[in-house]
Formats: sequence, structure tokens, C-alpha cells
Amino acid sequence: MRKTKTLLVAHGSSDVSWGNTFQKMTESTREKYPDVSLAFMELSSPSIEDEIITGKAEGYQHFRVLPLFLAKGKHLKKDIPAMLLSYETSHEISTELLEPIGEHPLLAEAIRLIIEETAE
Amino acid sequence: MRKTKTLLVAHGSSDVSWGNTFQKMTESTREKYPDVSLAFMELSSPSIEDEIITGKAEGYQHFRVLPLFLAKGKHLKKDIPAMLLSYETSHEISTELLEPIGEHPLLAEAIRLIIEETAE
Repeated sequence: MRKTKTLLVAHGSSDVSWGNTFQKMTESTREKYPDVSLAFMELSSPSIEDEIITGKAEGYQHFRVLPLFLAKGKHLKKDIPAMLLSYETSHEISTELLEPIGEHPLLAEAIRLIIEETAE
Repeated sequence: MRKTKTLLVAHGSSDVSWGNTFQKMTESTREKYPDVSLAFMELSSPSIEDEIITGKAEGYQHFRVLPLFLAKGKHLKKDIPAMLLSYETSHEISTELLEPIGEHPLLAEAIRLIIEETAE
């Protein structure tokens, strides 16, 4: 069976505290699932390619990308698919781009619960 | 008691489907809580100011902003606070900027559940 790694991919920012929020947001998932890592599209480390290189060295051949984005704009429609296509060739791996978290019903539910909690 | 409106504020995009994702993501919350609306910082409609004008006409004096952002970058540290300050003066209302949804433990939990669900 091919070994699959899941990359939680966030946008990235030159602001360090921005990246820390994603480290914290994904901590419980990464602790529970050792096959899951956090990576950034740009500006923050590690990059998607960094994680593919590391993962490949650990024996992973397939990389699933779960975008930590709320909606699909240019980055998810063009930039990330193009990056993944290029890495498939250059690193001889396969990739799969999942729907961004914002499209999942759990996000709608989380927002409703946050509002419920803060309701006066 | 002052009447409070909560604005769920997303970034906005020239891509219409991007805005639709946020309409859908916030639908159950807006249906359950009539005092909650969706607004966009830029590019999409309605804008934050549109919703403040509408809300004020309906008798709301206080506007709480829940950012539909995953982390705090320049927009939440500078742009949105500056916009809110300016609207407080120009529309004679009060505002309150909440933490972005990405800082809430429910987001970390949603990501964990999404991974759990998609685990092979």
C-alpha cells in the first residue's frame, strides 16, 4: 500500500505570530495523526516543497493537501494546483488537492457555536 | 439596553464564487440569529460600512465584528481596526472587534474532525 502523508496547507505570512496561530490550530491534529504535517504556500516555513522532500525521505509517495483556507480563490484554483503538478514531476510523487476547510459543514457549525457562545 | 448587531466579516474577493462560499458557511448562523449579518472588508458586497448603515437604520447602535479569518495579519491588526474607528465617528456608533475564528478552539477541533473523516 502506498504511504500517504496529509499536508495541512495554510497561506503563510511574513508575520511570525500568524504562523504560530496555525501551529496552535493544528497541534491536536498533528499529535493525534503522525502522518499529518503543517506547511505553507508562501512566506512562512516549512513550504509545501520542504514537507514533500521530508516526507519522501521518510517513505511517503502520496501527498494529500487539505487547504486551511476558508474559500477557493486564485491560490486554490491556480497557484497550488500548479505547484503540486510541478512537484509531482520534480519529486516523483503523487498529490491530491482536497476541498478547503471552509467548504466543510463543520466550519459552518463552528461559526454558529462561536456566535452562540458569545451571544449576550 | 443598546441594540447590538454582529457582523461576520470576511476578506472579500473579485471572484463571485468566493463570496458564495461565505454566504453558505454563515447561512445557518444568520437564520438562527437575526442580529447577525455577513459583510466583507473589500471587493465583495455588502461592505462593513453598508451593513453599519443598514443596521443603524434598523436601530442598532453597537456593532460587534467576528472576523472570518484564520489568523491575525495586517488586515486584522491595522486595516479593520482603522475602518471601525472611522465608522464609529462617521456613523456615531460603537464597535468591538472580536478574535478571528481561527483563534477559537472549535477551529482546531473542526480540522481534527475533518482529518478523522478523510483518514484512509
